[in-house]
Amino acid sequence: MLLYEDKRAPNPRRVRIFLAEKGIEVERRNIDIMAQEHKAADMLTRNPMARTPFLELDDGRVIAETIAICRYFEALQPEPALFGRDPVEIAMVEMWQRRVEQGLFMPISFAFRHGNPRMAHLETPQVPAWAEVNLPKIGDALNFLNGELSGRAFIAGDDYSVADITALCAIDFMRVLKLTLGEEHPHLSRWHGDVAGRPSAAA
Amino acid sequence: MLLYEDKRAPNPRRVRIFLAEKGIEVERRNIDIMAQEHKAADMLTRNPMARTPFLELDDGRVIAETIAICRYFEALQPEPALFGRDPVEIAMVEMWQRRVEQGLFMPISFAFRHGNPRMAHLETPQVPAWAEVNLPKIGDALNFLNGELSGRAFIAGDDYSVADITALCAIDFMRVLKLTLGEEHPHLSRWHGDVAGRPSAAA
Repeated sequence: MLLYEDKRAPNPRRVRIFLAEKGIEVERRNIDIMAQEHKAADMLTRNPMARTPFLELDDGRVIAETIAICRYFEALQPEPALFGRDPVEIAMVEMWQRRVEQGLFMPISFAFRHGNPRMAHLETPQVPAWAEVNLPKIGDALNFLNGELSGRAFIAGDDYSVADITALCAIDFMRVLKLTLGEEHPHLSRWHGDVAGRPSAAA
Repeated sequence: MLLYEDKRAPNPRRVRIFLAEKGIEVERRNIDIMAQEHKAADMLTRNPMARTPFLELDDGRVIAETIAICRYFEALQPEPALFGRDPVEIAMVEMWQRRVEQGLFMPISFAFRHGNPRMAHLETPQVPAWAEVNLPKIGDALNFLNGELSGRAFIAGDDYSVADITALCAIDFMRVLKLTLGEEHPHLSRWHGDVAGRPSAAA
């Protein structure tokens, strides 16, 4: 199998960290999104959504969407479990994964894609007012997660999960908005130190 | 357990259909979103995201997010499988569920929430230009799904899945934008007739 990615983008990083936590190695091929390589005909045939990452299986089938790729590997190799084990854990990981994705990752992405002139050739048309509206949502999400992490080790509970991977990649991606965690986020900063210190974070 | 929902909204309908396909009955309580009942203090304690649906377990824990609730019931009662069975199926259902959610459901929701004056008290501030940008994405998504369904029975493959539930609820929710499927969507219309004709669709 072959994993297509733009190695500078946050979604491919989610998959790399997930694979590192599983101890799985997969051959990778880089696609430069800023150079629009993901919109080349042979890439659109593989993923009509024109996004990375996507995983091409040996029989030619393609699995796109970060979380779908992660679930594929979770099903192939269940240990260590990164999507929960029992019904409540499974639900909580899904809930937190989605809360982080929609409440933090997407506002960061919207603010960047609609607010940065360098993205104008990829996001057409840009809606600067949409970037503006999303900026305060980022602060709200950081404060919410900081409060939650005052009471537990990881985003979805006592165990590291895919929700931590999404949150780590989102928070580190705030660099494109020149945003960082601050003194007002002691619990989130403690958590960030923990997850960023895992070997997988360098994947 | 108790399921909180605004029964007129599309996300609670996804859970009701899912439960109907499983043959599971759950006690429900209605919350009127237009009247902002989801923002009452006792509701925000349960779901700080101020959204429905959410599921309160007998021990007081709360599972929010439509798909997290569905995964909880899938784990409790695996049959009939609505999230796939083997690794590739599981990945394909996740991929298509997300493609429908992000490519169709969210553009419909954005166009409605940012474009309809009746939503101004819930979506603050509205960004009319964001509603406008999302309208053509809806047409693109319908055309894409129509092409895909020329070659298979259901959204994610040969079997009915949660991706069909998301797509059905999204397409039926287009009524708030006064949009419907047309003659240019023969395969999607055939599929819609099939899934809307299942008893679960009336749940």
